[in-house]
Amino acid sequence: MTNFNVILFNNFETLDVFGPIEVIGKLGKHYEIECFSEKGGIITSSQNIRVETLPISDINRDGILLIPGGFGTRSEVNNKELIRYIKDLSLCAKFVLTVCTGSALLASTGLLKGIMATTNKMAFDWVIEQDKDVQWIRKARWVKDGKYYTSSGVSAGIDMALGFIADTMGTEVAEKISQGIEYVWNRDKDSDLFC
Amino acid sequence: MTNFNVILFNNFETLDVFGPIEVIGKLGKHYEIECFSEKGGIITSSQNIRVETLPISDINRDGILLIPGGFGTRSEVNNKELIRYIKDLSLCAKFVLTVCTGSALLASTGLLKGIMATTNKMAFDWVIEQDKDVQWIRKARWVKDGKYYTSSGVSAGIDMALGFIADTMGTEVAEKISQGIEYVWNRDKDSDLFC
Repeated sequence: MTNFNVILFNNFETLDVFGPIEVIGKLGKHYEIECFSEKGGIITSSQNIRVETLPISDINRDGILLIPGGFGTRSEVNNKELIRYIKDLSLCAKFVLTVCTGSALLASTGLLKGIMATTNKMAFDWVIEQDKDVQWIRKARWVKDGKYYTSSGVSAGIDMALGFIADTMGTEVAEKISQGIEYVWNRDKDSDLFC
Repeated sequence: MTNFNVILFNNFETLDVFGPIEVIGKLGKHYEIECFSEKGGIITSSQNIRVETLPISDINRDGILLIPGGFGTRSEVNNKELIRYIKDLSLCAKFVLTVCTGSALLASTGLLKGIMATTNKMAFDWVIEQDKDVQWIRKARWVKDGKYYTSSGVSAGIDMALGFIADTMGTEVAEKISQGIEYVWNRDKDSDLFC
């Protein structure tokens, strides 16, 4: 079983996390999903959802990383301790997935230099300031470059998670999951209706 | 401000809750979102998300109720205490919204007799057994009958929540939210691609 490690912080965007988690969770025992935060304990989303987390120091680093966005990223990009953890974990992770402004946190590590990535359109100008050496792509539902998957705003994370499953386990598996959760999968990562 | 009260139980389906919460949360201070469970404390979803809840006895009953579905409903339909709470709260609520098999819990109260409702296609035969006097509609993204909104499986809850906002606050508000979260809103409640 592979660890699917979610990094939370206060004022994360609710659906950035739980869209992808719904999709990944449908793979059953294939992935072990766990939420982590810098110090563990209760973390509250921008929509007042309080989630219990484990301390980030407890992560099995040899897994997959999901980094959501949200209003909280505006201050967390300056949280050196969290960015150091994200850098360290991203180096070890099999894959790193970001949703929305989660890419700002990943870009702050410097690991995306020269790599293609996208983010939320509404926050685009702020996100790209975090590292101008990233090959930022404005028009994309999501972008894959090596082990890095970055998605556009909020709901795009669901499409990206299905795309990640299609890439790693086959399109049929992704299609079955989207059918099961009655979700109309926007499967073309280059088609962006919001740009 | 209106209370938006979410009823949780173990093995609820993650996206059934957090899809609608993302949408409703975008209304800012219009709604006060809070999660409740029978006894309060940590409740765990089928996807291993642990959410902190308040005891259901603390609910301000004069609000809006959201009842998710998920594997947990299979046992909760037999939880007389929870069904009694849901009946009591539904009678007082301005609106009652259910996602997926959450309609099985609502139907178990007897309040849906003669009322049009829908649910998840995959669990349809089990759900309609909870009360055969409901006007169950198989083919619908979501159904509105009076103050009751019931949706199809999982992701349909997002479309229903946007439909609820369109009905109560105007289509422009719903459209602005769906744009903001980069979600392709399936806005026709009678169009069901999964049936």
